[in-house]
Parts: sequence; C-alpha cells; structure tokens
Amino acid sequence: MKKADVVGILLDEKDKIPVVVLKTVEDNIQLPIWIGPVEAIAIQNALENVEPARPMTHDLIKNILDGLGAGVERVVITDLLENTFYANIVVGIGGREVSIDSRPSDAIAVALRMNAPVFINDQVFEKMKEKMDPDERLREYLNSLSSEDFGKYKM
Amino acid sequence: MKKADVVGILLDEKDKIPVVVLKTVEDNIQLPIWIGPVEAIAIQNALENVEPARPMTHDLIKNILDGLGAGVERVVITDLLENTFYANIVVGIGGREVSIDSRPSDAIAVALRMNAPVFINDQVFEKMKEKMDPDERLREYLNSLSSEDFGKYKM
Repeated sequence: MKKADVVGILLDEKDKIPVVVLKTVEDNIQLPIWIGPVEAIAIQNALENVEPARPMTHDLIKNILDGLGAGVERVVITDLLENTFYANIVVGIGGREVSIDSRPSDAIAVALRMNAPVFINDQVFEKMKEKMDPDERLREYLNSLSSEDFGKYKM
Repeated sequence: MKKADVVGILLDEKDKIPVVVLKTVEDNIQLPIWIGPVEAIAIQNALENVEPARPMTHDLIKNILDGLGAGVERVVITDLLENTFYANIVVGIGGREVSIDSRPSDAIAVALRMNAPVFINDQVFEKMKEKMDPDERLREYLNSLSSEDFGKYKM
C-alpha cells in the first residue's frame, strides 16, 4: 500500500472526461482515475478551499461525520476491476474503524475535506501495468485514430 | 410542522430546472423546491428504487450512516430565505439526535434512502404565501412574458 497525493484534475483530451491524478509520495508513480464532472468539481473545490454558500453534497458528508464525532482515518484505492476503480473510506468513531465501500471520486472528495491520507493498494499498480505494458504500441496506434476511424472500423 | 410526502420530480417548463414537489399529508398543500440536476437524479433513483452498480454519492451517505449505526430520525425543511430553501437532517445515534444543516435536495435524497419522514416548518408556508399571494396577478403577468421580453424591459 502506497501513500499518494492528490495532484489535481485534468480533462481527458479525447473524450473531455475529467481525470483525477494521484501521485505516490515515495516514488512519484502517477495514477489517473476517470471520474464524473460533479465529483471533479467537488475535488477541485476542496483543492482550492472554495467554501460554497450552501453545503454541497460532499460538504454534507463532512458535516455528518463531524456532527457524529467521526473522522476519516484514511481512504484506500483498493482495486481495479473491468476498468472500474474501487475504494474504501475508513471511518473512525469511538476507537473503532468502519470501512465503507465508495467510488474513488467520492472517497477523494471526502478525504480532502477531512484532511485524511489517501493510499493505493499494490494490486492497483500491477493491474494498471498489465493494462498498459504489453499493448503500449497498440494503445498509441488506437489513440492516433480519430473517432471517425473508430466508427468506420467498428472496433 | 407538517409531515409531507415526496410526490416526485418535475421540470420547470420555463428554465428547464428540476423541481422536487412535496405535498403535506394532512391537507395536500404542495411545496415546489427548485434543485440541481444531479440531486434530481438522486431523488428520482430513490423513488424508483434504482440500484446503481456502484454507490452514488447519496448511497454513500446511507452506507456511512448504516456503517456507523446511525439512522435518520427526520428531515425538516426549515426556512425560506431570499429564494433559498433550508433544511436539516436529524441523525440519531446511540439515543441522541444531531441536527445537520443541508440543502433540501440532499436532505430529501437521504431521507428517501433511510426511510425517514420529511417535515415542513410552518414558517415556510407563510413565506411562500407572502411570496405568492398579493402578487399572484403580477406573477401571472410576468410568467406570460417571454425571456426576450425580460431582456427588453430589464426588469
């Protein structure tokens, strides 16, 4: 398990989908996670310390945790299954820990608000590597095709 | 304070903004609250018992509350100030109640998932009445104007 910083939000150039980029503290491995636009704004607001006039949904989560006297011990990006990243929010309350299943985007938006560290499980890097390594040249070829090419060849 | 049912989501015809409609159980007074599109989907999914493949943000809130052994006692639409509705989520844990400030849309999306009742404070109806009653004819006149009319007269 490696500790990671939240570097920021990028926009995937091809599909205009937001990407949150994590970077491991120890060895600077970058992990991009494709997320929804609303969660991207929630993460961006936390990174920029934007305080909305009314609590947005992730601010509400912070307010609920604070109100119950609970904290977030850590957030863990746990797995990558069929192109979907999985995460846990580990909540601490009264000396015990409760692990809550979460999309990574929600987990990161909550971690930033609760000043909680983010970790990435080792198997996530291995699965990213499997996805990337042997097909790197094929991937570059596919990326060089336009969306019209994709429509034409029905890949 | 009046108990209310969540009737459903409508789309404001003029501006295409989603509206969640509440109706008091006792005397069928309807209360429309203008909300965001993401929160509208969160409410609609709960009304239709849609279970997403991965937990969406309001499902995460339910999972956090369940994980901590907390419940939602009730949700209260508390006030209407400068065209903004205010709400509280009253969370119960270990015999005590904690009141959390929330946008009504989030509060309703959470209430539906936690099978919690929704109430509306009396002052909300009074303020809606002030807004509506004396100016009803003016309001109808304004509604009859197109957006170009509004631009023209700079009202």
